[in-house]
Amino acid sequence: MRICFIGRVGPERLEEYRRAHAAVWPEMLEALRDTGWGDYRLYLSPDGLLVGTVETDNYAAAQQRMAATDVNSRWQAAMAEFFGASGRPDEQMTVLEEVFSLEDQLAALGLPTTRAAVPTPAGPNPRSDQ
Amino acid sequence: MRICFIGRVGPERLEEYRRAHAAVWPEMLEALRDTGWGDYRLYLSPDGLLVGTVETDNYAAAQQRMAATDVNSRWQAAMAEFFGASGRPDEQMTVLEEVFSLEDQLAALGLPTTRAAVPTPAGPNPRSDQ
Repeated sequence: MRICFIGRVGPERLEEYRRAHAAVWPEMLEALRDTGWGDYRLYLSPDGLLVGTVETDNYAAAQQRMAATDVNSRWQAAMAEFFGASGRPDEQMTVLEEVFSLEDQLAALGLPTTRAAVPTPAGPNPRSDQ
Repeated sequence: MRICFIGRVGPERLEEYRRAHAAVWPEMLEALRDTGWGDYRLYLSPDGLLVGTVETDNYAAAQQRMAATDVNSRWQAAMAEFFGASGRPDEQMTVLEEVFSLEDQLAALGLPTTRAAVPTPAGPNPRSDQ
């Protein structure tokens, strides 16, 4: 399933936050990948709202595995300045409730979850193309 | 790519909003699917922040195709009460900037984007299993 969480970045630190996340440490990327953070993405609004999405069957387990890595402790310490409040940024995120899933509702109604293939337009009849 | 957008639901209407989105009209579901809204999901925070995610190669085109459907006009009219401000809710969403993608950064570094397969533990040697 896809988890969505939100957090807050100090509005005066947005540019630094952006820069730090444009080139995350390779070791951190590999740790996220190997602890089950599937297709993890972060989005930022101009006022500092941070939204994260991650594909995982067990978000709590993925968080715990990541929290147990050495690189995560170093990364969170480096990121703490962006979040202002005390504590580690990865402990200040709020998971949101999913209130709609297009694919789940289509499936529950027995409807196809993907669009029917659009037929390739037929070419002109060769006999009329003279 | 995955688009992430945010909007606001009136805090006093959260329960009704939840209820309406727990069973969206089948015709609306099919229109979303057929106009290119891939794996479309909505998330709601307790204070009324609404987050949407959708997989699409061209969000503007998907919006335009959806806006041209008859069922969308009826749906947006029915939903307008949840959003308070004037206008259609689908015109009041703000697309957020993506500031991090785990898979894109792994790929840019030439690193595998999926975890290495964990070897299946070898069974006991049949000869020793006596």
